[in-house]
Amino acid sequence: MEITVMKNIFGANAEKAGELRALLKDKKVLMVNLIGSPGAGKTTILEKTIEELNKKYKVAVIEGDVATDRDARRLQKYEIPITLINTDGACHLEALSIEQSLNGFDLDSLDMIFIENVGNLVCPAEFDIGEHAKIAIISVTEGDDKPAKYPLLFRESEAVILNKTDLEQYTNFNRASFMEDVKNLNASIPLFEMSCTKGPNLAPWIQWLEKRLQSL
Amino acid sequence: MEITVMKNIFGANAEKAGELRALLKDKKVLMVNLIGSPGAGKTTILEKTIEELNKKYKVAVIEGDVATDRDARRLQKYEIPITLINTDGACHLEALSIEQSLNGFDLDSLDMIFIENVGNLVCPAEFDIGEHAKIAIISVTEGDDKPAKYPLLFRESEAVILNKTDLEQYTNFNRASFMEDVKNLNASIPLFEMSCTKGPNLAPWIQWLEKRLQSL
Repeated sequence: MEITVMKNIFGANAEKAGELRALLKDKKVLMVNLIGSPGAGKTTILEKTIEELNKKYKVAVIEGDVATDRDARRLQKYEIPITLINTDGACHLEALSIEQSLNGFDLDSLDMIFIENVGNLVCPAEFDIGEHAKIAIISVTEGDDKPAKYPLLFRESEAVILNKTDLEQYTNFNRASFMEDVKNLNASIPLFEMSCTKGPNLAPWIQWLEKRLQSL
Repeated sequence: MEITVMKNIFGANAEKAGELRALLKDKKVLMVNLIGSPGAGKTTILEKTIEELNKKYKVAVIEGDVATDRDARRLQKYEIPITLINTDGACHLEALSIEQSLNGFDLDSLDMIFIENVGNLVCPAEFDIGEHAKIAIISVTEGDDKPAKYPLLFRESEAVILNKTDLEQYTNFNRASFMEDVKNLNASIPLFEMSCTKGPNLAPWIQWLEKRLQSL
């Protein structure tokens, strides 16, 4: 019985996710799902990305957090549409709550929607929430073994952002080992290096987003 | 129906956890559940802790990982009993798999068992797995806002380890804000600062473990 129920939940979620993805494609709105550990730098990357994209595109954000509105408040300064989903303990977002968030946006006026998922490398990777692309965000201070230890996220993602590279010199992060594990899981996945506090080097990431939007 | 099933799962898990805790108390074996984000330094703290405790105590380890045996292999050099639980995608450990691991140990010969839970601040905090104490492990590179954003773990834990303090000078980690949030959630919780790569300052943590063992 337990397995049946889980299948029903996954099935209903996947069906809803497919509907949302089709709707957004029709509206020419790219939806990107940012997934990373607590403290990997998701909100800071989002801040830098919005600052750059705001010059040319209409962007909205769906913030997923277990508790508090801290991340959503950090983004208020950009005066863009933001929806906060407090999961109240749940470890990931699901398509149904994304649908409710989308209902609050004027999709005809938007170009891109960024979802900041709950800080967690495991559960968010398992759920299709209607995004066009999952992005794995990892910081060098987490260690080079994370792709091998959390393989599903790196298989499911369309790009990897390696963040906090300014701290790499103070750690034992093994770049070669990290790259080998990533490529073993997802051979052609692009990797964007960033150091958000020192100078983010955003251009390749922004170009990738623009290309992905055009491909819808 | 879904809620009923979840309650059954939680109920069966909690019952089993209670049995395990009573068994271990009877055997005078302290079981500690280490919980932290991917890359917070759980395995390194475990290495340093085992090196210190091995002088005086018989220690065993239960390693929980989504995939790979990398952490378990890192601990093989200590020639202590180690059980690896590969959760195969699941985001936390449960009492039933802990029971199977305990069946593989000679409890009469042991003083302490350390469980390294799956790297995740959300789900492991929700599950009683028969431990006597949950320990929250957090590194300064994750940012000072983690207690407020993942409150359950800090409420459920008996101690906090703040790791990677050697990197604090390169980050914008706000110690005062971090401490305030921790104390708001759990007023009297002890906090142990560590820098495992530079010199771990283990003594207060080891003393706490010894005292906790004596209190069983």
